[in-house]
Amino acid sequence: MADNRFVVFTPSGKRGSFPNGTAVLDAARALGVDLDSVCGGRGLCGRCQILASEGEFAKHGITSTTANLTDVGETERKYADRRGLKPKHRLGCQACIQGDLVIDVPPESQVHKQVVRKRAEARPITLDPVVHLHTVDVTEPDMHDPTGDWQRVRVALEDQWDLAIDGVDNSVLHRLQKTLRDGDWTVTVAVRQGHHAVGIYPGYHARALGIAVDVGSTTIAGHLCDLTTGDVLASVGRMNPQIRFGEDLMSRVSYIMMHPGAENELTDTVREAVENLATEAVKEAAKKAEVAVADIHEVTVVGNPVMHHLFLGLDPTELGGAPFALATDAAITTRADELGWSFNSGARVYTLPCIAGHVGADTAAVILSEAPHTMDAMTLIVDVGTNAEIVLGNKERLLAASSPTGPAFEGAQISCGQRAAPGAIERVRIDRETLEPRFKVIGCDLWSDEDGFAEAVAGIGINGVCGSGIIEVIAEMYLAGIIDQDGAFNGTMTRTSARVQETGRSFSYLLHAGEPELRIYQTDVRAIQLAKAALYAGARLLMDRMGVDRVDRIVLAGAFGSQIDVTYAMVLGMIPDCDLVHVSSAGNAAGTGARIALLNNDARREIEDLVRRVEKIETAVEPNFQDHFVAAMAVPHKTAPYPNLANAVDLPARSQPASDSPGRRRRRKRG
Amino acid sequence: MADNRFVVFTPSGKRGSFPNGTAVLDAARALGVDLDSVCGGRGLCGRCQILASEGEFAKHGITSTTANLTDVGETERKYADRRGLKPKHRLGCQACIQGDLVIDVPPESQVHKQVVRKRAEARPITLDPVVHLHTVDVTEPDMHDPTGDWQRVRVALEDQWDLAIDGVDNSVLHRLQKTLRDGDWTVTVAVRQGHHAVGIYPGYHARALGIAVDVGSTTIAGHLCDLTTGDVLASVGRMNPQIRFGEDLMSRVSYIMMHPGAENELTDTVREAVENLATEAVKEAAKKAEVAVADIHEVTVVGNPVMHHLFLGLDPTELGGAPFALATDAAITTRADELGWSFNSGARVYTLPCIAGHVGADTAAVILSEAPHTMDAMTLIVDVGTNAEIVLGNKERLLAASSPTGPAFEGAQISCGQRAAPGAIERVRIDRETLEPRFKVIGCDLWSDEDGFAEAVAGIGINGVCGSGIIEVIAEMYLAGIIDQDGAFNGTMTRTSARVQETGRSFSYLLHAGEPELRIYQTDVRAIQLAKAALYAGARLLMDRMGVDRVDRIVLAGAFGSQIDVTYAMVLGMIPDCDLVHVSSAGNAAGTGARIALLNNDARREIEDLVRRVEKIETAVEPNFQDHFVAAMAVPHKTAPYPNLANAVDLPARSQPASDSPGRRRRRKRG
Repeated sequence: MADNRFVVFTPSGKRGSFPNGTAVLDAARALGVDLDSVCGGRGLCGRCQILASEGEFAKHGITSTTANLTDVGETERKYADRRGLKPKHRLGCQACIQGDLVIDVPPESQVHKQVVRKRAEARPITLDPVVHLHTVDVTEPDMHDPTGDWQRVRVALEDQWDLAIDGVDNSVLHRLQKTLRDGDWTVTVAVRQGHHAVGIYPGYHARALGIAVDVGSTTIAGHLCDLTTGDVLASVGRMNPQIRFGEDLMSRVSYIMMHPGAENELTDTVREAVENLATEAVKEAAKKAEVAVADIHEVTVVGNPVMHHLFLGLDPTELGGAPFALATDAAITTRADELGWSFNSGARVYTLPCIAGHVGADTAAVILSEAPHTMDAMTLIVDVGTNAEIVLGNKERLLAASSPTGPAFEGAQISCGQRAAPGAIERVRIDRETLEPRFKVIGCDLWSDEDGFAEAVAGIGINGVCGSGIIEVIAEMYLAGIIDQDGAFNGTMTRTSARVQETGRSFSYLLHAGEPELRIYQTDVRAIQLAKAALYAGARLLMDRMGVDRVDRIVLAGAFGSQIDVTYAMVLGMIPDCDLVHVSSAGNAAGTGARIALLNNDARREIEDLVRRVEKIETAVEPNFQDHFVAAMAVPHKTAPYPNLANAVDLPARSQPASDSPGRRRRRKRG
Repeated sequence: MADNRFVVFTPSGKRGSFPNGTAVLDAARALGVDLDSVCGGRGLCGRCQILASEGEFAKHGITSTTANLTDVGETERKYADRRGLKPKHRLGCQACIQGDLVIDVPPESQVHKQVVRKRAEARPITLDPVVHLHTVDVTEPDMHDPTGDWQRVRVALEDQWDLAIDGVDNSVLHRLQKTLRDGDWTVTVAVRQGHHAVGIYPGYHARALGIAVDVGSTTIAGHLCDLTTGDVLASVGRMNPQIRFGEDLMSRVSYIMMHPGAENELTDTVREAVENLATEAVKEAAKKAEVAVADIHEVTVVGNPVMHHLFLGLDPTELGGAPFALATDAAITTRADELGWSFNSGARVYTLPCIAGHVGADTAAVILSEAPHTMDAMTLIVDVGTNAEIVLGNKERLLAASSPTGPAFEGAQISCGQRAAPGAIERVRIDRETLEPRFKVIGCDLWSDEDGFAEAVAGIGINGVCGSGIIEVIAEMYLAGIIDQDGAFNGTMTRTSARVQETGRSFSYLLHAGEPELRIYQTDVRAIQLAKAALYAGARLLMDRMGVDRVDRIVLAGAFGSQIDVTYAMVLGMIPDCDLVHVSSAGNAAGTGARIALLNNDARREIEDLVRRVEKIETAVEPNFQDHFVAAMAVPHKTAPYPNLANAVDLPARSQPASDSPGRRRRRKRG
């Protein structure tokens, strides 16, 4: 027809002819172009912004010009006055086609936009949340057509948004009639999975929030996200109040075994903490944006098996002993009100699946975040805590196991150990000749040998050594020849420095002479050797099972993983040899995985499928575990080669007493 | 194969060959024969009882004999000792085939058995409840195969019962691990709709209950049923405690309008009453059977739109005024714990759909019970209360309306009126010559002119006249010529009997001279005329819309409908003319409909489809309603013919003052 105009959308390349005067949004919808809208063409939400290109497009045989869009009208001007429009940006629902056009849909106007992550190597998250908002005009009731109000809302969603709604929350029905009348028969409906109504607001409403929560044994962390943009609006954390029932997981499980019914108390405690965390996150976000707890529609939760079970109200007693049976290894979706949460009864809480009795939903989330199953590279992921969860694999195959490292890495069982908190030593260097240490403490940016250090730490104190500090001091003791490959003190060093002293039947190294005195004993070295041997043996077991001798990539996950220097982890032999360029720290990867599951619907199917495919290895029943464990007691290892590490660090000569060959004295480079 | 035996099942006629030694239950399952089992072949539930026929079956070319079943073994003997086995009955899971057989599956062994109803004309209910019990043996957990306990239950249900379970209640997961271990890895799972687990019991468990509830404005009635047999175990009733917020519906809606938030109080009140009713029903049933409230898996609820909304926690305010918009006209399923019920959190509560703002889920249930949509006969159903719900139709088409009869039929607005309760006059006869009345009161089987009556009612009193008594006294006054067709007193009758007196500017009839004196005034006659005219006009409006002059069948539903004598209802012109043989009282048809929805899954789809197809007529906006109403004020009607009634009863001559033509004095026959 003569009146038809030819339109090409970029970047999709979708194209078609439309009658003169067609709104750009309508044209985009007709072609299936990914152009967002909440208000449904009312010029209120500003989600459908587009740009018209200027120029000749020989490929399409058209000349596009901004003049081929209708002029800015009343509605669009009001929107620009109220919320601003960037230069050349037009509202797709208001601008109408009146000539051939090439129309660009910028990323922020796409429903399925990419959410870029901070770490360069991490894959971006494609935004595709489970909840979308849709504003509709609803037909008023009529004596001659006595359908229910809800049925007319359904018809409106079908007519105006092409949605087939087959379910509705009772909480929506409860406020439906008042909301319809308050909104003068215009309402915004929150629709979950494209077919179930979970929220309703009078008139136009544009805000939908979600929160991704990582429930750790010690801390609970949450990221509040805008479901329509993918932006993190606030990140908050707090201690897990269950600590009062026991510091570590097994002591909490023991508490429950000894106090039948206490599981309910622990469940209430953790649920209340997560609810408070959500409220706090909204309060935090409210400093910059207009948000309310009632806008939280979706929550994702990850945690280790015991936290997972307690959060869901499942008695974790079975996880306290062999065969460590999970109640369920499926993902679970509950309604917020079932958890006793009042902020939005229609909010859904999606708990990621556990993998096995020792490998939880947190590890599932780490897999989602680090995506070994999408890569060719053979990837080893270790998440170190009281247990180390270990994942090995690539796109072909994934293995997972848990290894009983004990709490040494967290500073427990170490004479001078403490939690990572202000006043804890976190970095250590030992002079190869004088054996004098220098260190950094949490809460102070200076090294201990820098000017002003004493004043800077006066208010903090030097109270102990945290996990990363213990890794470094023992690795440095090895590199300086104070201990040998077997972890034994070199008694001759007492002659080199007064810091090495005979203590009882063994020796010790004085790290800090203050109050308290911080000293590394032979037992401390042994505790770390046991812990790291368990970790290494677990990784090695998976490598055996996979049939590989080396890995292409190592990711250290978790709070501890983000604190330690990966080079020292390798010096100590916590992890197998790997090109250090490909050893990275992923920070709170479990929290990131929870965020991915929050923002991307497909990621849920992905992880639910994956956990079923992951091969679970139970280290406790593997006959080779003990052999690997014994061999891994040495620093870094009795037999395994570390060619990449040897290239990066001056290692003492192998299998020789460190005292005989203290290594070159060249200072090691830091990355 | 030589070892195969030929087996025919009756009454299905299904047949097949099976290896020697096949259990009858396994053969039946392989052929898809409708043979029940809960325990899954353990010889515990006794649901799979069968009988082997003796004789030659030329048609199949076999000779069947009980000897072709294996002998009664240990398990079967134990069952017989414990619970008894009728002569020749065998457990299908224990008896094995060792020769050709004709095997009869008696009705009580069929899953889809027919539940016969008391009224001969009512269609039987095919048992097909939404919840079934299945006993399974579950694989124990194993360190080498760390699947969740729930996943192994799923596999067991799939392997042993061919069920694909895709959902599980959190409450089931919560007690799953303990139940599995308490039952030593044998559990019975309650499965809803064949795919969702709603309950779990250790070991073998055979009892599943449901309760059908009719929430009326005045009374709440419940039928507790065994879902596995369809038997009613107990029927209980109680007053609706909402009465304290207002006697009738509109006064309760007004209360809510004047006390915002009070809807929650009314909701809590009715939910608590239904929960208590369920508990009471179980207590009642427990006198005869081993039942517990935790065995209630399903509840069905019906009620008028206001009761329906309040029960579901929906504010009924919109139902208090035009256009009387329902929040929803769909059926709603909730979990018991969402209603605050503690008896079994996994129980589902299915509320039947409302038809329109004045025509509720109770009417939907009446349709399900009386099934006009399955018949050729043009059926009129009237359910009389403060409003009369009227349904007209057959298998081709269904119409429904509500007519504002007011509360006169319930004894309100009548000077001597009262609720149907002991001491209320419910039956009245007036001698055509002497005008002397005789009557019966509720709580006494004697007529007032029979010997011993005075003594019998001494403890009860004669306190007033209930609805059915009012219908009868006014109809009898008409038949005796005390009032004419227009409802006006015939003043000349004061000369016939002192019972007819001049009172103020009109007359009255003395029904009973005791304390209190019970007298029918002109205003009482007018109140009944108004009520019956509204009812008749509603019915007539539907007949107009349907294009019919007469109906084939009339059903009077509801408590009132079951109390009144249908002949008197017709004398008064409450209902149109119809062959009296085809006018019946259905009792609590709404409660029966709720029971059908409880016992038969398909009935739910049936009524959900039907309510959408029912054409809703709003009497208030129908221009002809007023004309019909005015014409229907006469007794029985100004113009409509009543040929069937005239054949059955001696009617006074038409359109003539009753005093001129008091009719023949022959006594009317009673049915």
